[in-house]
Amino acid sequence: MINKLVNRIKETNAPVVVGLDPTMVMIPECVQKKAFEQYGETLEGAAEAIWQFNKSIVDTTYDLIPAVKPQVAMYEQFGIPGMVAFKKTVDYCREKGLVVIGDVKRGDIGSTSAAYATAHLGRVKVGNNSFYGFNEDFATVNPYLGSDGINPFLDVCKEEKKGIFVLVKTSNPSSGEFQDRIADGRPLYEYVGEQVDRWGSELMGNSYSYVGAVVGATYPEMGKVLRKVMPKAYILVPGYGAQGGTAEGLKPYFNEDGLGAVVNSSRGIIAAYKSEKYRERFAPENFADASRQAVIDMIEDINSIF
Amino acid sequence: MINKLVNRIKETNAPVVVGLDPTMVMIPECVQKKAFEQYGETLEGAAEAIWQFNKSIVDTTYDLIPAVKPQVAMYEQFGIPGMVAFKKTVDYCREKGLVVIGDVKRGDIGSTSAAYATAHLGRVKVGNNSFYGFNEDFATVNPYLGSDGINPFLDVCKEEKKGIFVLVKTSNPSSGEFQDRIADGRPLYEYVGEQVDRWGSELMGNSYSYVGAVVGATYPEMGKVLRKVMPKAYILVPGYGAQGGTAEGLKPYFNEDGLGAVVNSSRGIIAAYKSEKYRERFAPENFADASRQAVIDMIEDINSIF
Repeated sequence: MINKLVNRIKETNAPVVVGLDPTMVMIPECVQKKAFEQYGETLEGAAEAIWQFNKSIVDTTYDLIPAVKPQVAMYEQFGIPGMVAFKKTVDYCREKGLVVIGDVKRGDIGSTSAAYATAHLGRVKVGNNSFYGFNEDFATVNPYLGSDGINPFLDVCKEEKKGIFVLVKTSNPSSGEFQDRIADGRPLYEYVGEQVDRWGSELMGNSYSYVGAVVGATYPEMGKVLRKVMPKAYILVPGYGAQGGTAEGLKPYFNEDGLGAVVNSSRGIIAAYKSEKYRERFAPENFADASRQAVIDMIEDINSIF
Repeated sequence: MINKLVNRIKETNAPVVVGLDPTMVMIPECVQKKAFEQYGETLEGAAEAIWQFNKSIVDTTYDLIPAVKPQVAMYEQFGIPGMVAFKKTVDYCREKGLVVIGDVKRGDIGSTSAAYATAHLGRVKVGNNSFYGFNEDFATVNPYLGSDGINPFLDVCKEEKKGIFVLVKTSNPSSGEFQDRIADGRPLYEYVGEQVDRWGSELMGNSYSYVGAVVGATYPEMGKVLRKVMPKAYILVPGYGAQGGTAEGLKPYFNEDGLGAVVNSSRGIIAAYKSEKYRERFAPENFADASRQAVIDMIEDINSIF
């Protein structure tokens, strides 16, 4: 799957991921109204609105981008109907040929981590049959529990030829509270980066590993160090745009061939029609066209650094 | 909810939690067969088997115990039907008066953490209505992303009078990889413990905080230190039994009043009928009776240390 991701990035010339993290506030009145007419102001109604919103954005942007990253929390909060909308979104994006990165930030130990890996990347056995649970292509994983938490993911990745992105240095202001603690002269995130390199060394695609890393756009100096610590890891970069990361700051995350990193934008794309930049050009009912324009502009912005 | 947990522990005289982490291997043939007859060897069939298995164990043990801890990964791997079984289990346990600790180990930042908190502890707004997603009483939370990840949980806990258990020192062998890194002469888990104390200081129940901590039974020396670092935090202790933690080793996790900690056992209870200790006394179809006996024995074992 890492090969597919790299190939799609080359084809589209777009090292970007669209984060499908809808909230009700982002979804235009007209989409909400239609869903509520059908299902009422219920969890099912909200889930339908989310799904229709996602579908429009995917239909309007899929030819431009290599991958999407649905954030499962945004669906999980709507209970079972929300998880149904998550699954529909994952399935639909895969049908459209997109690489799907499940932003699930799961992590536990042993058989529990194996169950998470199965849920999001693998197949579960039931009697003589086996089934995919949610079937993303990649999942984000939290490393706090150490190798016991990661190894079960590696097993499933090997079997399914899928991948993970391990949280190394997150984009948020307080990420330093624990991640930046200096141990033996080096910050914790470097140790995590080293482990990512080690975990990934046996799971190599053509030029990059199945094991990638999450490094926030808001910390370019750390990105520079981590790029060297994990030469074979694709870096998934959140925090561009809304969180303050700039295109210029993204340079250290990439290798000289323009590969090695893929930059996420969520709100900046899916809620583009509400932003100062686009709201005069695009009415709420044309939200998906605004998203397409925002994708085009983002690709141009990021490619300007090469 | 921390008050309810403490009161129920006093009433039952049982500082124990039953981990509802079923796998298909644990579920007796007879339960599986019945479910498969109804739904086939499908995800729905597996989910039905899990739900019936849980229900029998809850029906047979709920009068002895204060709380249960369903591990969501075990349900999530069965996709949507699995999540339906998770929700049915949570709802049923709450109906039975049990405190439900959702072992979800979620953690993200800002609005995403808020969505996870809403999913598992709070209510989501849809138009003029609001709904609970999964509605556990407590959730376990991963601290790797720092305060930005925890604060949204605290907001929901305050509003709903619910609680969280923050992963501080996990029970697995490789937990030390990152958690034990020494920074300024002290291990990372101590810093996390200090933050747990700080996060919890404004969310106090009668004698303990809404913000508890997870500290594995397999590291009693660290438990001793952490008990002092977080005097107001209830400690949820995994790793007893199957993972090698002993009753004697649990002493440091408790305060002198016999409160302050609650010990989880999953496999040791729910798969008791398969264990060497119980399998001669209990046939597979009497698995729930074996679980009851295992609960009684566990309570006696743990109370022997006071």
